[in-house]
Amino acid sequence: MYTPDFAPEINIRKDKVVAALKAMNTDAILLGTNVNNYYMAGRVFSGYVYITSEGYMHYFVKRPALLKGDDVTYIRKPEDIPALLQQAGIESPATIALEMDFMSYSDIARLAKVFPEATPSNGSAIMRYVRSTKTAYEIEKIRISAQGHMSVYSNLQGIYRPGMTDAELQIEIESRLRRAGCLGIFRVAGPSMEVFMGSLISGDNADNPSPYDFAMGGAGLDASLPVGCNGTVIEPGMSTMVDLCGNFTGYMTDISRTYSVGTLSELAHKAHNCSVAIHHAIAAMARPGVKASDVYNLARTMAEEAGLAEYFMGHAQQAGFIGHGVGIEINEAPVLAPRSRDVFEAGNVIALEPKFVIPGTGAVGIENTYLITADGCENLTDFTEDIMPLD
Amino acid sequence: MYTPDFAPEINIRKDKVVAALKAMNTDAILLGTNVNNYYMAGRVFSGYVYITSEGYMHYFVKRPALLKGDDVTYIRKPEDIPALLQQAGIESPATIALEMDFMSYSDIARLAKVFPEATPSNGSAIMRYVRSTKTAYEIEKIRISAQGHMSVYSNLQGIYRPGMTDAELQIEIESRLRRAGCLGIFRVAGPSMEVFMGSLISGDNADNPSPYDFAMGGAGLDASLPVGCNGTVIEPGMSTMVDLCGNFTGYMTDISRTYSVGTLSELAHKAHNCSVAIHHAIAAMARPGVKASDVYNLARTMAEEAGLAEYFMGHAQQAGFIGHGVGIEINEAPVLAPRSRDVFEAGNVIALEPKFVIPGTGAVGIENTYLITADGCENLTDFTEDIMPLD
Repeated sequence: MYTPDFAPEINIRKDKVVAALKAMNTDAILLGTNVNNYYMAGRVFSGYVYITSEGYMHYFVKRPALLKGDDVTYIRKPEDIPALLQQAGIESPATIALEMDFMSYSDIARLAKVFPEATPSNGSAIMRYVRSTKTAYEIEKIRISAQGHMSVYSNLQGIYRPGMTDAELQIEIESRLRRAGCLGIFRVAGPSMEVFMGSLISGDNADNPSPYDFAMGGAGLDASLPVGCNGTVIEPGMSTMVDLCGNFTGYMTDISRTYSVGTLSELAHKAHNCSVAIHHAIAAMARPGVKASDVYNLARTMAEEAGLAEYFMGHAQQAGFIGHGVGIEINEAPVLAPRSRDVFEAGNVIALEPKFVIPGTGAVGIENTYLITADGCENLTDFTEDIMPLD
Repeated sequence: MYTPDFAPEINIRKDKVVAALKAMNTDAILLGTNVNNYYMAGRVFSGYVYITSEGYMHYFVKRPALLKGDDVTYIRKPEDIPALLQQAGIESPATIALEMDFMSYSDIARLAKVFPEATPSNGSAIMRYVRSTKTAYEIEKIRISAQGHMSVYSNLQGIYRPGMTDAELQIEIESRLRRAGCLGIFRVAGPSMEVFMGSLISGDNADNPSPYDFAMGGAGLDASLPVGCNGTVIEPGMSTMVDLCGNFTGYMTDISRTYSVGTLSELAHKAHNCSVAIHHAIAAMARPGVKASDVYNLARTMAEEAGLAEYFMGHAQQAGFIGHGVGIEINEAPVLAPRSRDVFEAGNVIALEPKFVIPGTGAVGIENTYLITADGCENLTDFTEDIMPLD
């Protein structure tokens, strides 16, 4: 399937899946979603990846008709797979994991029938866990995304014109991101959280609640997509929170920065500084073994001690987390929430977004993407954390 | 939930679902995907819509915390629903339809347990059928999208600069679409067909097969999104097929036009004219009662009689359809394919895309969006069908 120099990388990923299958006492996993096919093959294709706890991996491909290799077999339908496995001398699985959280009921029911002798189980958590610790190769992809993402965010001064709306500003930044190499697509796990290229929120639109568990909502421009910018005319004294797509390589960074037109209120500056202080405190404590819930609690306590609890992670509607894993999708593991049972591991890549919504000003604070290293934490998106002028 | 002037529209949609439930002998349907929540409420929200064959409809909402009305009840989880229905005096269903093709296995398994006494069935086809005939209100939304979409496509002359790549051209057109009011989001039913804002294909990139059943593939810019423009430098003699997002209102039009730089080959012009002739022939025959498969066969026969069969709907990889319904999503019913059992009905909105891939030139042909009326067919995207210059 892949070029020889990519084979070692794929073997690392396969070994992680094999270890997880063994830990779950599961004989095999059959993957079929775009993101997990991409993870296991290094490219998106239509079809399936079959991996056993013995270390056998094979690609069963429907489209496109151009993939080659001993590990590739073309199929018309998943029902073709068992006979092909038998021909290859692979034992039938007694237990098989399927992507039950991310494939439709109809698709899973069909795949379960393909292996009528096997007991199906939910393999979504296996892949979520495997993908939560990034390989050196994946981290490099994220570093490249970080460079493109930071370059656009760093150069917005002068973009503002009096009378400009949040939507006009977002469209201009989207175009700059795309011209810098952003692929545009913003992958969110699960079908329910729809957003276009991320969100940009100016002024009190930050307080409009969204259908999703987002820190900042935004009413949106249309009832069919009620999230993000809503046509607010940007005025002096308003903050603008930019949280747009950082997918330059298939792997995303997640960065937010606060921008100003004119002068923001003292309370807004105080809250912004609190967000930055939370980042520095977490960056100093984050390392393998630290509980995600403890990180959440540290952030929450710092916001409370600063007297800013009512503005923390939203005002009218508050989000129940302060960060999340990021990679191929924007909402990977671990989750930084009060009841999360996740514990940091080396290789986790985490977006931290302690933000505040200040009535009359808008959203403030920053979001960075960090790598959990063997003995600490590295900021992959290390550039100015100050409020930056748009005018 | 909605304003009084929108209530009659929602009642029309509810009546269509009720009729379908009765026809399927199903007591109730519980919806929960964004697109069907949007269809039944006129806005996206997080939660569920419950509809019975007796005509009762209620919204069970998780977020956002701002929806009001006698027909709205806030819930924390779907398990809250049965007790609330009982309090409202609604009988427990003996059979319940769920969105099995579009909700995850895990979500459906959970919802089936919410109604342990009811026999679950797949309600996806019900909603697919109901949504395939558009109301007057929906058709008006599609007309508005058509205006924005056509205005951008009509004004691309002069956009070309020597040395320009397909990606640079696409990014410029994306920005013009967004500035004209396009919402950007390009909804595709099902999780497997990922595309950003549609596709733009120049030259022989049209012959690179995609992972999807698309007429034109395109290698894409990255292995994580292997579809569409691939960095081809646009040269004189190449065609460029523009097939980008027409979602201005929550309802989409689907339009493709062929553009040229310099002069295209005679064969390319011949194939383009054949595409236009197929459109006119189908527009003359399409009306309620016509079989979608007959429409496909007419197009295929015309391509064969013109001696263009080997270029029809792709060259290296040929797509197995020439059109599809369009509305909230890009791939609605009916499907215009050889084995389709769909029959046209008044209110169908159909994108027709008989295209050709000419080696050495690229993709040619056009795509329009048509409305099936009581006694014929109306082109909703009636503007120039000629090959248009970019230079």
